[in-house]
Amino acid sequence: MIKLGVLASGRGSNFQSIIDSIDRGALDAEIACLITDNRSAYAIERARLHNIPHVYINPAGYASRDIFYRSIADELQFCEVELVVLAGFMRVVKKPLIDAFPMRIMNIHPALLPSFKGLNAQKQALDYGVRIAGCTVHFVDEEVDSGPIILQEAVPVFSDDTEESLSARILESEHRIYPLAIKLFIEGKLRVTGNTVKIGD
Amino acid sequence: MIKLGVLASGRGSNFQSIIDSIDRGALDAEIACLITDNRSAYAIERARLHNIPHVYINPAGYASRDIFYRSIADELQFCEVELVVLAGFMRVVKKPLIDAFPMRIMNIHPALLPSFKGLNAQKQALDYGVRIAGCTVHFVDEEVDSGPIILQEAVPVFSDDTEESLSARILESEHRIYPLAIKLFIEGKLRVTGNTVKIGD
Repeated sequence: MIKLGVLASGRGSNFQSIIDSIDRGALDAEIACLITDNRSAYAIERARLHNIPHVYINPAGYASRDIFYRSIADELQFCEVELVVLAGFMRVVKKPLIDAFPMRIMNIHPALLPSFKGLNAQKQALDYGVRIAGCTVHFVDEEVDSGPIILQEAVPVFSDDTEESLSARILESEHRIYPLAIKLFIEGKLRVTGNTVKIGD
Repeated sequence: MIKLGVLASGRGSNFQSIIDSIDRGALDAEIACLITDNRSAYAIERARLHNIPHVYINPAGYASRDIFYRSIADELQFCEVELVVLAGFMRVVKKPLIDAFPMRIMNIHPALLPSFKGLNAQKQALDYGVRIAGCTVHFVDEEVDSGPIILQEAVPVFSDDTEESLSARILESEHRIYPLAIKLFIEGKLRVTGNTVKIGD
């Protein structure tokens, strides 16, 4: 059974959707640890409720960002993690962690990449006036919201949408495709060639 | 009944979808003229078949691009056109035409803007490895594939897609949303505020 490591900074609703998928047998995996950079992240509470080991790593406690990410990589390797799942981790992941888990770190972004990279993607989409929004699961590389795309799902944008209503609609979509992307990884169905991912047997 | 002016450089399949929508009564409009910059565009043949006046304007015959676009604007105004529809017009429209028809020029682009602006959008999408592609109808402003978005439709990208198969799937979608966007314009349901379009009564 594959071991996952989850990194989260906030409420961790995608973390929960993965827990739920495992609990109902849809995902043949075990969450070996939750790592958070935020002592008051609600994700910690979710980990406690499900007996998932959790570690708070204080970014202020490290001499450099490289050492910070090297420590996270060490922790994940200590837990024998095979796939790292970013679930609302509000930092740009740096080289020491990426190098330790090449094409084995996934992220979800609340936009149809390459549109609306960075923060507040849903607001960016509303401000631009798009009619179709969505979310993207991708492997993480050294650029922000870049890296090979695994899955995407589109949702409509309605005329009366607010940032909240659109975010909620996209989040439902996130909770569907993130566990699915992890499942494809576990089943060995993702083949990365260059900057693209082929899904197949 | 509103008069449309269509600009096309090639086969004009979107031009045809508009003709068809008018013919079956779905669009209460008349195509007052087709203007083309390509003497051998198949769009001319379509115009002939449907008794639509057509004009070939040779770009080489004008001292400057501004004069070229001023001439197109004159021709459209002479035909009493109220809405200009770009249907595979392979040029960047310039200020004299845009100023003559402010927020009354529509374009369709084979991508979910703001992703994949410019040429070969479908190939750009495949090269990037997206799972969702689509098309966008927007008002034309002075930047390429910019301007307020009217409608978008998403289509899936499949693992075995080629540029041809994806383009064909997107084209079906184009033929659906372009007439629909024109219909919304005719019915007075498009309100442009800033860079976004509200659809409503």
